[in-house]
Amino acid sequence: MRVEILCTGDEILTGKTVNTNYSHIARRLSDVGLDVHWGTTVGDDRATLLAAFRQAGERADAVIVNGGLGPTVDDLSQEIAAEACGVKLVLSEHWMERMTQSYARRGRVMPANNKKQAMLPEGAEFIDNPIGTACGFAVTIGKARFLFTPGVPREMRRMLDEQVIPRLLKLGGITGVTKLKRFHSFGIGESRADEMLAGIPGLAIDGEIKLGFQAHFPELAARGATEAELTAKLAAIEAEVRRRLGNFVVAEDDASLERVVFEKLKAGGHTLAIGETFTSGAIASRLAPLLGADAVFRRGVIAAGVAADALRAESGTSHALVVLMQLDDGPDRPDFGATITVQIADAGGTVQRVARLVGGRDWVRIGAAELGLDCLRRHLLGLPVDERIDFERR
Amino acid sequence: MRVEILCTGDEILTGKTVNTNYSHIARRLSDVGLDVHWGTTVGDDRATLLAAFRQAGERADAVIVNGGLGPTVDDLSQEIAAEACGVKLVLSEHWMERMTQSYARRGRVMPANNKKQAMLPEGAEFIDNPIGTACGFAVTIGKARFLFTPGVPREMRRMLDEQVIPRLLKLGGITGVTKLKRFHSFGIGESRADEMLAGIPGLAIDGEIKLGFQAHFPELAARGATEAELTAKLAAIEAEVRRRLGNFVVAEDDASLERVVFEKLKAGGHTLAIGETFTSGAIASRLAPLLGADAVFRRGVIAAGVAADALRAESGTSHALVVLMQLDDGPDRPDFGATITVQIADAGGTVQRVARLVGGRDWVRIGAAELGLDCLRRHLLGLPVDERIDFERR
Repeated sequence: MRVEILCTGDEILTGKTVNTNYSHIARRLSDVGLDVHWGTTVGDDRATLLAAFRQAGERADAVIVNGGLGPTVDDLSQEIAAEACGVKLVLSEHWMERMTQSYARRGRVMPANNKKQAMLPEGAEFIDNPIGTACGFAVTIGKARFLFTPGVPREMRRMLDEQVIPRLLKLGGITGVTKLKRFHSFGIGESRADEMLAGIPGLAIDGEIKLGFQAHFPELAARGATEAELTAKLAAIEAEVRRRLGNFVVAEDDASLERVVFEKLKAGGHTLAIGETFTSGAIASRLAPLLGADAVFRRGVIAAGVAADALRAESGTSHALVVLMQLDDGPDRPDFGATITVQIADAGGTVQRVARLVGGRDWVRIGAAELGLDCLRRHLLGLPVDERIDFERR
Repeated sequence: MRVEILCTGDEILTGKTVNTNYSHIARRLSDVGLDVHWGTTVGDDRATLLAAFRQAGERADAVIVNGGLGPTVDDLSQEIAAEACGVKLVLSEHWMERMTQSYARRGRVMPANNKKQAMLPEGAEFIDNPIGTACGFAVTIGKARFLFTPGVPREMRRMLDEQVIPRLLKLGGITGVTKLKRFHSFGIGESRADEMLAGIPGLAIDGEIKLGFQAHFPELAARGATEAELTAKLAAIEAEVRRRLGNFVVAEDDASLERVVFEKLKAGGHTLAIGETFTSGAIASRLAPLLGADAVFRRGVIAAGVAADALRAESGTSHALVVLMQLDDGPDRPDFGATITVQIADAGGTVQRVARLVGGRDWVRIGAAELGLDCLRRHLLGLPVDERIDFERR
């Protein structure tokens, strides 16, 4: 099935807003085994919208339209959809009632221009929006089914998962279940990870379980008839991936390096102080937003020349992590590097790891933060802290 | 002139990579007075690429193609461009020589597959890439001139400014110069800024100088015959914008709030310590990356219950900024808020500003960091620190 994504709106067309809705929709479709074949971006312009709908209707089997469902005059999706279908707009009494109630619950009167959001092409299939005033709908234009979603990311994301994807799977006759298994690694590059994972039995052979890379991290995509069947098939392969990547797997699925570190600290009843130079507080800013972090993360210091044992003593924490950087001199350049010193102090003393990273000023800063967190993870898990990583120069 | 942007590549199509090249190209075109009418995204697939080239060639006057110029087999732009033009690929001796020399200078031998990057459609106009191995080129498909650029952002950006935009301006018969004047504000929303700037003589009347908003900040876009004429025309309007927005203008053009604060501190020979709770070190992370920041920014502390005068004494700095947050209880929601306390200590004592911000957990964190920096700016400039802002609830 050929699926397209059609994004509307001057903000997106002119580049004022980076089109993250597009990438979210495309990734989610890919997660469930649907491939996007074409993406279109057009502005809030009648003639262009109509042409875009018609051209997509000639190419695709299904089109997800995003945006243009708001209450203002430049929101044109319903109107142009009706024109492309050769029908008129009719009021959805159901949606009008839902919107009125929603305003009433908040003690407000619905503004008159919201009525526009209840005007749908005659005969359109209604698509619910449980958290906003822009309902979705579906119509057929040319040979394609068009599914309309609002531009507000939070509303679009929920409707995509709950309303749009199930319709697309049905349309494409896709049955069974899909599962994604993600491994987050630190210290091995994508091409080496690819080599390390080559030849795992059952992987990318029958095509049911495929190896891919998402943001440089290995990812297994599997399809099967049932959840149970899939889980069983994946178990052996997951174990083999873990075995081969070893200590370099820092987190799995929705977990992150910082969350793994935080959970381990919390489970041990530990507290942490962090000292950083030249990483702009990057480590603290990854740990601090985690829910409940304030119970564990006691103090962050951004200053030159902090020693982990002194910081630990000063802060009264069980652990202290210090990441110091000695940056190269001169202007930024691809081989700009830094020498990173990571110190971890706990009741048992201080461990230290020194590594030289190269790859430009920004990259080195990100790498240093990641290295510091990974050393802490390794220390907390009893793994070797000084295992050589791919990004390191000697 | 109708300009389109056509982005190619599976990484972009599948959403693995967010398409920031598109937004960069669209914004730069808009800066020089060229409007983008249509955006297309397709993958590394022969039939789809050919169809996309042909369809854009029917709609547009000019098309910027981005991506697909690399040395690997899935880079198809030259090949499909040649097919769409009905010509064959021929070797550019010039580019082959340039690439060979470039490798030789780095003491390396050019890999054989780089030759592919010197194969251009017969009769194509060569477009130089001064910093990479993917040269650009231009051909005519249908009624549109197609300009091909590499997907590597750094290379694309430079070629866009130096090679592509001048060609487009010539193609569109656009003469004269364009100038953008940006104002960064804090504390007034876009709609109120729009009201405050309504009716400025010469603004949006003859259309030569237009008021717009970029990321919620007011922006003047002007066109004129010469740089001198434009500067003269803009001067009076700029002054009026500054007068009307008053203390809420925090920076202009490429400056930022944090840079203004930093420059002011540096000029006064001051030093700074920062204390933050619940902002995840957001203020420190904005100041610390500025070039030369380590001479001014001495210490950042992320911890609960720091007082500015104590932090100043402890750090031995001339100034201390502390931003404390008392977050509402319960789950995140649109009316989730926080009470922000900003304290600034210097030799003259401590000033304090308390404000309540509402708008969800993430927004409140960002707002608190911005408020803290803005209070420090106001304090350093001798402006009132407690001027009410639009985002504040009482």
